[in-house]
Amino acid sequence: MPASLSPTARTTLHRSKERGRSARDDLYAILDSGVLCHLGVVVDGSPMVVPTGYGRIGDTLYLHGSTGARSLREALDNDVCVTVTHLDGIVLARSIFHHSVNYRSAMIYGRARQVTDPDERLAGLRALSERLAPGQWDAVRPPSRKELAATEVLALSLDEASVKARQGPPGDELEDYALPIWAGVLPLRTFWGEPEPDPELSERLQVPAHIANRSPLGSLP
Amino acid sequence: MPASLSPTARTTLHRSKERGRSARDDLYAILDSGVLCHLGVVVDGSPMVVPTGYGRIGDTLYLHGSTGARSLREALDNDVCVTVTHLDGIVLARSIFHHSVNYRSAMIYGRARQVTDPDERLAGLRALSERLAPGQWDAVRPPSRKELAATEVLALSLDEASVKARQGPPGDELEDYALPIWAGVLPLRTFWGEPEPDPELSERLQVPAHIANRSPLGSLP
Repeated sequence: MPASLSPTARTTLHRSKERGRSARDDLYAILDSGVLCHLGVVVDGSPMVVPTGYGRIGDTLYLHGSTGARSLREALDNDVCVTVTHLDGIVLARSIFHHSVNYRSAMIYGRARQVTDPDERLAGLRALSERLAPGQWDAVRPPSRKELAATEVLALSLDEASVKARQGPPGDELEDYALPIWAGVLPLRTFWGEPEPDPELSERLQVPAHIANRSPLGSLP
Repeated sequence: MPASLSPTARTTLHRSKERGRSARDDLYAILDSGVLCHLGVVVDGSPMVVPTGYGRIGDTLYLHGSTGARSLREALDNDVCVTVTHLDGIVLARSIFHHSVNYRSAMIYGRARQVTDPDERLAGLRALSERLAPGQWDAVRPPSRKELAATEVLALSLDEASVKARQGPPGDELEDYALPIWAGVLPLRTFWGEPEPDPELSERLQVPAHIANRSPLGSLP
């Protein structure tokens, strides 16, 4: 896979081109610091957008869900669009028109492939688990044969992807800079709160370090 | 509009029914505490999912963008799906299989209508602005005639919507509760950081209270 994203017709940005990012590393960074994506599928000709988890191994994105989930069933062997968005702040301009958001966003287009090879299924599920809850795969009970059978795993190539990002202060009209109006950015921060033990939990069990010290969402580990 | 969400074929939950919410107020609460939605449209038979802002007035959702934006052009008079998701925490179970997320999510289906009436356009843009940056509509320069002409406003009825949410500790298999494995919830918190003044800003201008004291994302004002 080349180090740059190779644009196709639908990943070529037509507007706000200055917000485009062409390095494959930018794509990886957005994916590797998120937890949820929004998966788009077409159902009877209409779009359906569902929030779901994902995992990445190299240039393959993995999705999973119950074998009964409609969105996964519709995704199978069909075109999908997976979007991951980090909202970094609100851009407050001197005019309503130039208000905006600072963000990083990745869109991936492709045909979702059903993963049937047991080794790849397990690797994909591990990648999904590590994205959702790093360190847990090796710390808790692994999936049983029955649980695995109830789980559909799909793979999506990262071949066709686009990355957009905005950062920095507002871009106001030249004549507006003289207005006596505050302008700038209101940054959005996310952090993990204090872990809340399951009420059923024995008090002897301490919060593992990989949970207590988890990297903030939106930043790389 | 009735106080409960009236399910249609595509908003009837087939799985995890206990996660469904049927009160229209739950829908409003999710929409009124977010900033970005993910808009799904169909382009040449394939899905496209883009992050974008939104606003709500009563039972109408407003979207906007440049008249040149492809996603809006495709949405016009076509079926769309708008999804707003709040991620509230990671559910850490005693087994990989029962890992999950605590979240609140709203999905809205419908045909996007182009708003042409000048008064409704302005009201819709104001609702969008108040969602993105409450208080700014009355504090900064209003849109010019030229800026308004460059802006497309779409309306989407909230008639057909579904709400899903999960909260609380993991639901593990009965036999797993005896395992010596920590389980619980790692809550995700978001807050607004210190406002960052535009470097071009006069130092005499103070951060307005409506920016400095903004309610946290994911909670109602």
